[in-house]
Amino acid sequence: MTEEVAPPAGGAHPEVVRWRLRVAYDGSGFRGFAAQNGHRTVGGALADALSRVTRVEVALTCAGRTDAGVHALDQVVHFDLPAAVGSKLDPAAVMRSLNRQLAPAIVVREAGEVPLTFSARRSATGRRYRYLVVNGPVPDPLMANLAWHVADPLDLRTMSAAADALVGEHDFRAFCRRAPGTTAEEPIFRRVTDARWSLVDGFRGKALVPVVGRLLAFEIEANAFCHQMVRSLVGTLVDVGRGRKRASDITWILRSADRQQASQPAPPGGLTLMAVDYGQGPACSPA
Amino acid sequence: MTEEVAPPAGGAHPEVVRWRLRVAYDGSGFRGFAAQNGHRTVGGALADALSRVTRVEVALTCAGRTDAGVHALDQVVHFDLPAAVGSKLDPAAVMRSLNRQLAPAIVVREAGEVPLTFSARRSATGRRYRYLVVNGPVPDPLMANLAWHVADPLDLRTMSAAADALVGEHDFRAFCRRAPGTTAEEPIFRRVTDARWSLVDGFRGKALVPVVGRLLAFEIEANAFCHQMVRSLVGTLVDVGRGRKRASDITWILRSADRQQASQPAPPGGLTLMAVDYGQGPACSPA
Repeated sequence: MTEEVAPPAGGAHPEVVRWRLRVAYDGSGFRGFAAQNGHRTVGGALADALSRVTRVEVALTCAGRTDAGVHALDQVVHFDLPAAVGSKLDPAAVMRSLNRQLAPAIVVREAGEVPLTFSARRSATGRRYRYLVVNGPVPDPLMANLAWHVADPLDLRTMSAAADALVGEHDFRAFCRRAPGTTAEEPIFRRVTDARWSLVDGFRGKALVPVVGRLLAFEIEANAFCHQMVRSLVGTLVDVGRGRKRASDITWILRSADRQQASQPAPPGGLTLMAVDYGQGPACSPA
Repeated sequence: MTEEVAPPAGGAHPEVVRWRLRVAYDGSGFRGFAAQNGHRTVGGALADALSRVTRVEVALTCAGRTDAGVHALDQVVHFDLPAAVGSKLDPAAVMRSLNRQLAPAIVVREAGEVPLTFSARRSATGRRYRYLVVNGPVPDPLMANLAWHVADPLDLRTMSAAADALVGEHDFRAFCRRAPGTTAEEPIFRRVTDARWSLVDGFRGKALVPVVGRLLAFEIEANAFCHQMVRSLVGTLVDVGRGRKRASDITWILRSADRQQASQPAPPGGLTLMAVDYGQGPACSPA
C-alpha cells in the first residue's frame, strides 16, 4: 500500500532540508495533534505515514496544537529530512502516498520543500478558528461531530456585542488553561484582530442542513491563542446569548484575570482551525 | 435512563391509535432503515427505543426506506399502539425519551398522534432527496460521511443540462435496482418534478468548509423513487460531468430501459432524504 518515494538515506548526513505540509483533519477520532505514546493522535499518524514514505523518523512542528476532538481545515506542519532523502522526494508522490494512507480522516492538501528559515509555528503571524453552534430544540445528526448543540434560545445580537469586546490586545488569562510550569500571576497577552458571530444562512438557503433551528458560526483571528482560549470564549459568549451573563461582563472577566469568572469551555467538536497566516497570505512561507 | 411514559397496557385491546414521528439520522453507522435481524438499522434502533417507552412492540412504516449509509433529515414514520397505551402518552415526553436513547445519531424532531387514515408511506405524494459531491483534488475530512469525493473536474453546466432531461414522467427502469420478484419487462414509472445541480456557495462564503475544491448539490423531487434511483442517476450525471457520457445520453438511457447503460450508483454517504410531502406541505397528515 505504501509508496516508496525514496530509498533509505545512506548513512548519517549532516545537511537537512525542511518540508511543509498543509493538512486538514476530522479530529473526532484523535487525541489531538501532538504525538502521545499509546494514543492515536493526528501528529502521530502523520509522522508514522511520513516515515513509511521517507524511511526516516520525522519530528513534526505544527502551527496550532489542536486538542482532542478539534478539527483543522488548514493546519500547517513542518519537519526536517536528511538532504539526501528530502531533495529526492517528489512532492506530488509524497502527497499521494500520505493521502492513500490517511484519507479521509487526515488529508494532505499540499506538500513541498521550504527554506530552513520557515517555521510552521514561529513564522506564523496569525491563526483563524471557527466554532459552530447548532441552536435549536434537537441536535442535528449530520453535524454531531462538527457543532455544539445548544437547546436554549440564543440572542445573536448580544453575543455579537460581547464578541466585539474581544478585539484588541488583552491579557487572556481568564480564558486560558494554564500551561504546566507557569503561574497565575503571568499575564497572557494576545492580539485579537477579528471576532464575530454570524448566522450561516447559505446552509439553509441551499437546504444543506435544514435542521430544526439555526446554525451559528463564531470566527476569531488572533496573532496566537493560548490553551482552550477559543472554547472558553465560546462557552462564555454562549452564556451571554442565554442571558446568564451580560455582554459587558466580557470586559470585566478579562480584567479579572480569573479563570473562575469565565464559563466552562465549549466542547471540542465545534472547533476548527481554519487558516494560519504567515504575513503573505495563508500558509505562505517567507521567501 | 429510559423514561416510562405509560404503564403497560392491561390486556389485549382491540382499538389502536396511530402515531407519527419526524426523524433525522446520520446513516453512517446503520445498515439502512428497514429492521434486519442481527444488523444495526435505524428502524430497528427506533423500534427498540419505542418499545422501551411504550412497553409494547411496535412495527414501523416509513416514507422512504433508505439504504445502508444513507442519511435523512426529515424521514416520516408511523406506527400503531393499543389505544389504552397510545392515548395516554405525552408526545413531548416520548420525544425526550427517544432522543435521550438515540441522539445524536438518530434524532426525533416531532412526535404525535395522527388519524388512522394517515400512512407515512401511502399518504406521501412526494419525496425530496439531496446528493452532495465534493469536487476537488483531495477529499474533505469534515464531509467524509456526507459527500462523495470526485477528483476529476466536473462540468456543472453539462450536468445541469442532463438533469433537466429527468423532469417529467418516465420509465426509470434503467436507473433502478430491480425489486425481488419483479421482471425486467415491467416499466417503473416515476414523475420527477424537480432535478437540479447547484454550487453550494454559502458554504464557502461563510467559510463553512473551504476545502480545496467545490461543493456541489444535486436535488431531486419525485412522487416516489425506486431502489437506488438517486444514486444511479448521480453516478450517471457525474459521468456526464466528467465527459465520459453526453448530456443527451440521459434520454437515450431512459428509453433503453437497460440498467447496463447507466453508470455505477454513486456511494450512499452523499445521499440524504430531505423531505416528504403529504399534499399539504412536508410531513403534514391529511385531516
